[in-house]
Amino acid sequence: MKKIALFSLMFTSLIHAQSKDEQMLKAIYNFSLTQSQCYSWLDDLSNKIGARPSGSLSAEKGVTYTKQQLETLGLDKVYLQEVMVPKWVRGEKETAYILDNKTKITVPICALGGSVATPKNGLTAEVIEVHSIAELKQLGTEKVKGKIVFYNRPMEPYNIEAFDSYSNCVDQRFYGAKEAALLGATGTIVRSMNLRLDDFPHTGAQSYGDLPKEKYIPTAAISTNGAELLSQKLKENKPLKFYMKLSCQQYEDALSYNVIGEIIGSEHPEKIMVVGGHLDSWDLADGSQDDGAGCVQGMEVIEIFKKLNYRPKNTIRVVLFMNEEFGGKGGKKYEELSKKNNENHIFALESDSGGFSPRGFSLECDDAYFAKISNWKPLFEPYLIHSFVKGHSGSDIQPLTSVKIVKAGLKPDSNRYFDYHHAANDKFDAVNKRELELGAATMASFMYLIDQYGID
Amino acid sequence: MKKIALFSLMFTSLIHAQSKDEQMLKAIYNFSLTQSQCYSWLDDLSNKIGARPSGSLSAEKGVTYTKQQLETLGLDKVYLQEVMVPKWVRGEKETAYILDNKTKITVPICALGGSVATPKNGLTAEVIEVHSIAELKQLGTEKVKGKIVFYNRPMEPYNIEAFDSYSNCVDQRFYGAKEAALLGATGTIVRSMNLRLDDFPHTGAQSYGDLPKEKYIPTAAISTNGAELLSQKLKENKPLKFYMKLSCQQYEDALSYNVIGEIIGSEHPEKIMVVGGHLDSWDLADGSQDDGAGCVQGMEVIEIFKKLNYRPKNTIRVVLFMNEEFGGKGGKKYEELSKKNNENHIFALESDSGGFSPRGFSLECDDAYFAKISNWKPLFEPYLIHSFVKGHSGSDIQPLTSVKIVKAGLKPDSNRYFDYHHAANDKFDAVNKRELELGAATMASFMYLIDQYGID
Repeated sequence: MKKIALFSLMFTSLIHAQSKDEQMLKAIYNFSLTQSQCYSWLDDLSNKIGARPSGSLSAEKGVTYTKQQLETLGLDKVYLQEVMVPKWVRGEKETAYILDNKTKITVPICALGGSVATPKNGLTAEVIEVHSIAELKQLGTEKVKGKIVFYNRPMEPYNIEAFDSYSNCVDQRFYGAKEAALLGATGTIVRSMNLRLDDFPHTGAQSYGDLPKEKYIPTAAISTNGAELLSQKLKENKPLKFYMKLSCQQYEDALSYNVIGEIIGSEHPEKIMVVGGHLDSWDLADGSQDDGAGCVQGMEVIEIFKKLNYRPKNTIRVVLFMNEEFGGKGGKKYEELSKKNNENHIFALESDSGGFSPRGFSLECDDAYFAKISNWKPLFEPYLIHSFVKGHSGSDIQPLTSVKIVKAGLKPDSNRYFDYHHAANDKFDAVNKRELELGAATMASFMYLIDQYGID
Repeated sequence: MKKIALFSLMFTSLIHAQSKDEQMLKAIYNFSLTQSQCYSWLDDLSNKIGARPSGSLSAEKGVTYTKQQLETLGLDKVYLQEVMVPKWVRGEKETAYILDNKTKITVPICALGGSVATPKNGLTAEVIEVHSIAELKQLGTEKVKGKIVFYNRPMEPYNIEAFDSYSNCVDQRFYGAKEAALLGATGTIVRSMNLRLDDFPHTGAQSYGDLPKEKYIPTAAISTNGAELLSQKLKENKPLKFYMKLSCQQYEDALSYNVIGEIIGSEHPEKIMVVGGHLDSWDLADGSQDDGAGCVQGMEVIEIFKKLNYRPKNTIRVVLFMNEEFGGKGGKKYEELSKKNNENHIFALESDSGGFSPRGFSLECDDAYFAKISNWKPLFEPYLIHSFVKGHSGSDIQPLTSVKIVKAGLKPDSNRYFDYHHAANDKFDAVNKRELELGAATMASFMYLIDQYGID
């Protein structure tokens, strides 16, 4: 009898525990879908402040705005963390055309982040098309020297996760100029990292690596339609040149900030759980998907906890990192100060894959903890959150090195992400209110469960 | 030893069987994401043909086009099925304004499908706002007579499935005019079935039921922003009237067609598996999401089977139903002829919830078969298809009554669907190529498994 009673008690408390979590998740999703501020915050960030490239005036406005908003939430602390960031400015809008005999066919390009400018009157050269850095190297100096290298390997359409296609393609953008410069090229153009055919060139970081400055060559992205056209023209084997003019310039590093707000843990104030995204964007648009969405979702997690009167056991800290796009200085500075202050991070969650319908989380943790997290899947099922996988979490939380830290990235539906990523159409109307709110609720739910059950 | 050998053999063949299905699904997804025609078919349907309301010239063009395309696929049969459909024409674009004292504030409205016109010079009346038919009935004739009834209950933002919010809201649109007419109202306006605030009025079917014709009153949808504004103005308690002018007209029923293509089954030609969507759309836009997407996905299933040289055991029939939006005559005619010809349908799959990222299927079947289908979940996991639930399949396949039939509806992500549904922005650019193709592949995979393993 006693045994049965004990079992019954255990069973009852199990049900009770589960039901408590079920109720909390329900309250979180309900709040987010009906009362959250994240969409209106994004509206302000995108439409009142706009594009926020590192070191720009509008990035500073973004800092001031988000700090002010966090201050309205009644947190225990809201503060800024100084960080010096690279400042690169595009200057005058780029022009480019295919010079097909005497016909000029304009194509949409944009300088890649960190590119040097062309000469004032632009650069004209023959074009050589390649599909990989390996192919370029095989061609060698003789065939490359004096030419514009055109990297034209498309993102693979057949991967289910669009980020896999990005990873398999982005070396052309990141290392393409350096490799071409080593073979004497005068410039490079790279097919935009975009799964669809359209007229938007997509910028993004590139690196000259350890090249001496005098060897830097200008590098730009061309829209996918432009790349298709250029490739087709090259197949016609007519004498063809390419003209491009870039006016971009690298300035001195500028002072900027990570924006931080926190609720101090009631049981383990020394254990820190970070949530956030990055406040900087590229300069071509307001970066609503990349990563305005992640910032306001991080802020929303904190708002949800406050408004639902949930007092976390551990310290919850929202961090809006500066300069993810072009240097990652904010994430590095955050880790540097964290080490200096002997902080102990147990968990970090970043949203930097867009504000689309949330599908799950990408996790950096050991097998045992992964198994523990997998046990929470039934709690997420009613919200159509189903994908818990091991993988990359987020660029800004990458530097964090606390011994036992678990890291996670929100995993939204990836199909449309590269339609907007780093392009002029990454604007407010690309984000759906419900999808943004569901993402925030999914993050808050995950943070709640980690806070409740720890990471041991 | 023998026992072990047998077990080992069984195990090997189990692995083999599973691996065969895994390979087939991989081939299906791969084909759909790299070689399918569905997106270009949709481009034609949407951009060359356009809106296809029942009985219209463009609906007939849609019939001709899709039949021609099916004829290029080398099917065993392609044919049309005659069906008489209601023909309702919107006429001149509607106008409406709030008459706030002497100020006219224009608001976007559109007549609901089947509405009668207002008098030629329009209709002006006081407005009474309600949030449900029950509330209207409580008000009674005294408070309603001579007024325009304004139904303003929004779609619930807190449901995870947007279709639940639609179901809980659409009674206002479908029955609202009839109920208001019974209490002497002169017209009705209904808040658009849209989860977001914007300026698009959303049309859709409404029914006067058994009202005598002379009692019919004009009825229109107002955009969600318009509804918010009107409601706010009404709260100010000033004398306020509403003006609307509708020029719509009901014509004689017109001859139209269901479009059908089939591959005859190699083992069970008498067992029919149907897949498809509906070819008609509303008239305000080309209906790329509703339901151009479903049509081309159904066609794509057939293309995938043909191009992968998969010879189905059962007869696979793609059906593009006519007139789902306003009468459902195509689905009814299909069932009528099916009965007459003693056809035996074992399975029907409809895609009529948009061309968004596929998430799973909504199933009408018994528990045992539901359990069988659930066993296939691991096969779908690599494609992020995770949601297999019991529920409504599709309007066009609803009439089918074969004894053992299993019915399914493709379940795409629903968050953005009502941003476009029945509105002027349901256009080609609302559909993402990858999402459309993933949906088609998910349907083809499901059809393949049902074809392989039957429904017994």
